[in-house]
Amino acid sequence: MVVGIEKAVSPANSVVSSAKKTPAAIPSSDFVINLARGDPTMYQPYWRRMGDKCTVVIPGHDLMSYFSDPGNLCWFLMPELDDAIRRLHRVVGNAVVDDDRYVVVGTGSTQLFQAVLYALSSPHSPDTEPLSVVAAAPFYSSYPEETEFLRSGLYKWAGDAYAFDKDGAYVECVTSPNNPDGTIREAVVNREGGKLIHDLAYYWPQYTPITGKADNDIMLFTFSKATGHAGSRIGWAIVKDKEVATKMVKYMELSSIGVSKEAQLRAAKILEVIADDCVNSGLDKEENFFEHGHRLMSERWEKLREVVKRNGVFSLPKYPRDFCNFKGKDTDSNPAFAWLKTKDGLNCDNLLREFKIVTRGGPNFGVDSDYTRISMLSVDEEFNLFLERLAAIKGSINGN
Amino acid sequence: MVVGIEKAVSPANSVVSSAKKTPAAIPSSDFVINLARGDPTMYQPYWRRMGDKCTVVIPGHDLMSYFSDPGNLCWFLMPELDDAIRRLHRVVGNAVVDDDRYVVVGTGSTQLFQAVLYALSSPHSPDTEPLSVVAAAPFYSSYPEETEFLRSGLYKWAGDAYAFDKDGAYVECVTSPNNPDGTIREAVVNREGGKLIHDLAYYWPQYTPITGKADNDIMLFTFSKATGHAGSRIGWAIVKDKEVATKMVKYMELSSIGVSKEAQLRAAKILEVIADDCVNSGLDKEENFFEHGHRLMSERWEKLREVVKRNGVFSLPKYPRDFCNFKGKDTDSNPAFAWLKTKDGLNCDNLLREFKIVTRGGPNFGVDSDYTRISMLSVDEEFNLFLERLAAIKGSINGN
Repeated sequence: MVVGIEKAVSPANSVVSSAKKTPAAIPSSDFVINLARGDPTMYQPYWRRMGDKCTVVIPGHDLMSYFSDPGNLCWFLMPELDDAIRRLHRVVGNAVVDDDRYVVVGTGSTQLFQAVLYALSSPHSPDTEPLSVVAAAPFYSSYPEETEFLRSGLYKWAGDAYAFDKDGAYVECVTSPNNPDGTIREAVVNREGGKLIHDLAYYWPQYTPITGKADNDIMLFTFSKATGHAGSRIGWAIVKDKEVATKMVKYMELSSIGVSKEAQLRAAKILEVIADDCVNSGLDKEENFFEHGHRLMSERWEKLREVVKRNGVFSLPKYPRDFCNFKGKDTDSNPAFAWLKTKDGLNCDNLLREFKIVTRGGPNFGVDSDYTRISMLSVDEEFNLFLERLAAIKGSINGN
Repeated sequence: MVVGIEKAVSPANSVVSSAKKTPAAIPSSDFVINLARGDPTMYQPYWRRMGDKCTVVIPGHDLMSYFSDPGNLCWFLMPELDDAIRRLHRVVGNAVVDDDRYVVVGTGSTQLFQAVLYALSSPHSPDTEPLSVVAAAPFYSSYPEETEFLRSGLYKWAGDAYAFDKDGAYVECVTSPNNPDGTIREAVVNREGGKLIHDLAYYWPQYTPITGKADNDIMLFTFSKATGHAGSRIGWAIVKDKEVATKMVKYMELSSIGVSKEAQLRAAKILEVIADDCVNSGLDKEENFFEHGHRLMSERWEKLREVVKRNGVFSLPKYPRDFCNFKGKDTDSNPAFAWLKTKDGLNCDNLLREFKIVTRGGPNFGVDSDYTRISMLSVDEEFNLFLERLAAIKGSINGN
């Protein structure tokens, strides 16, 4: 049933490779490695080593009311989470979180993305066209379906930002570092009437150098990618405009009457522990979460590049090193996804499926099938098996 | 900012009484009692008395993956919550939860209601009319706005079921016991092409006699009203048809990639403790949650009826006593909301606002303004102050 979650993104993705025969080079193991979704299980051993530093204890009578902070515009946001979010951004230096910015919490940044679309497109008069939503290809594969699935009259998916040439109001999603390809991005349409959503899910020191404090109108972050706690479904938006924040809160009320307090409490605790640790223990220790994450990602990328170089079938993007304000030195980029391309134009996703590696193919991201996206955040065993199978592909291709 | 949450339901609700002068009978206290939303804070003292029986402890490395049960159709549902839900329904006898029924968890039943609308209306061909969504007035005030706010092309609000006369497909929401008026309901349209959503949020022994196991196609329940844990945002659907359940799961993936695991874990624990207690301790003890809830609600309703009878300005619905299978005896109905009506046709919500009692007026529920809905689930202090102020209204009205 892992296929279920794949279908949500694209039905095409659940179709297994069309290869008629099983290539000889496939390892005998029948285990299918699913690297299609970025389930950040890689971080679990770190958190296990931290012991009870981040343990939360919730008595039965706690957290019962709908309300968290009735005096706050975002009345369901717990003040301790608000504080922890702002503090961590200050410590890391990756976003401006001055007091005049509004924090809106969501059930993951997925729900917040939809809250932003609602906020930017309402109120809507029936004779107005739905607001166009665009992103530069390759774009995050869920944007089109999240925008389209309810056939809203408020907004509609308008495809690749590079090809967008309509007049009037539009929203451009700027994901930076980009999912799937890890590049640092800026808006590409840049026309009158445009609004921007900055999806900064991966703008954390383990993935990319922190070159400055992001200061965009609407910035989305997610607990999943920051710390690895995907199961909590906590995301947050940092919003400049009060009216936009107010409408986002209204969306959250109408779609789910707020966000689980248990998840908020736990996120607050974990973000706080990380911030404390950055401030008190320094960054050179393996115990620092971002230091640990960066080292792990660097090692994985080094190994992956080595395998790709040796077998000659694929290519990977190159990323410039840059000065990271957080680490105080030049660092490399180690994106959460590998954006793999076959050199000879073969369907990359299908090719890997023949080797029991499930990924998410280029067409889901608005580009050709010679690209595919591979999660770099799996557990060690899966990652190593992935490298083994990837290394074995050369012989198979040549053999064919 | 409590006004914020009111606006979500109806902007009209945040408009304070139009009375020009302050009636003399208003108690000197400026405290505004907000009984417009059913925040179930009444149950908190019970859970506090239960001490650490329901405490959950969550280490930092736990609950990290997106997935809870990859082999289950609802892959984000934690097996312990699935078990606890089915077990409690079996113990209470309020719903059929045979193994062939699907449980889908949501961020409150609010999210699940929207998941059902999506499931019943997709896939949708562009030349088909949006599916009509109806409910018999007085209906839950959030149905219209939850159905309309994204201006979906899949479904649209079509108002009072009694007045619905269109041919073709439709969905009828059957809330039983009904919110706002506490009546036991059945579908009213009963035509070809109709689908039913049964919202059974209040079908628990503290509110109404359990007269049989509900066995409807799609049944919605919510942790908020069952146990008082509104802040957790946990709801569940029990669904007969696999295809409907599958589409609901897809909705949950696209709108929030599942549901907070912290909240699920805690709900599982609390539902399990209640079920254990019903089985092991018997029902005659004050320690039993439903017994406690029923006694509390009975006392409140008795006091309210006494005040209403004495001041003569208002009327309340009467409910038949019935045999409760769970308690094994005849019991009374004690709805979570009082559906108060002014005898002389005055705007009931406005009248109460003059006495600093904020409620939700009849027009929000599709009926006249001589009705208003009042939460019976507030904390003792608020409930008692509400009764005091209500009792004082007679003199004021006569004085005018």
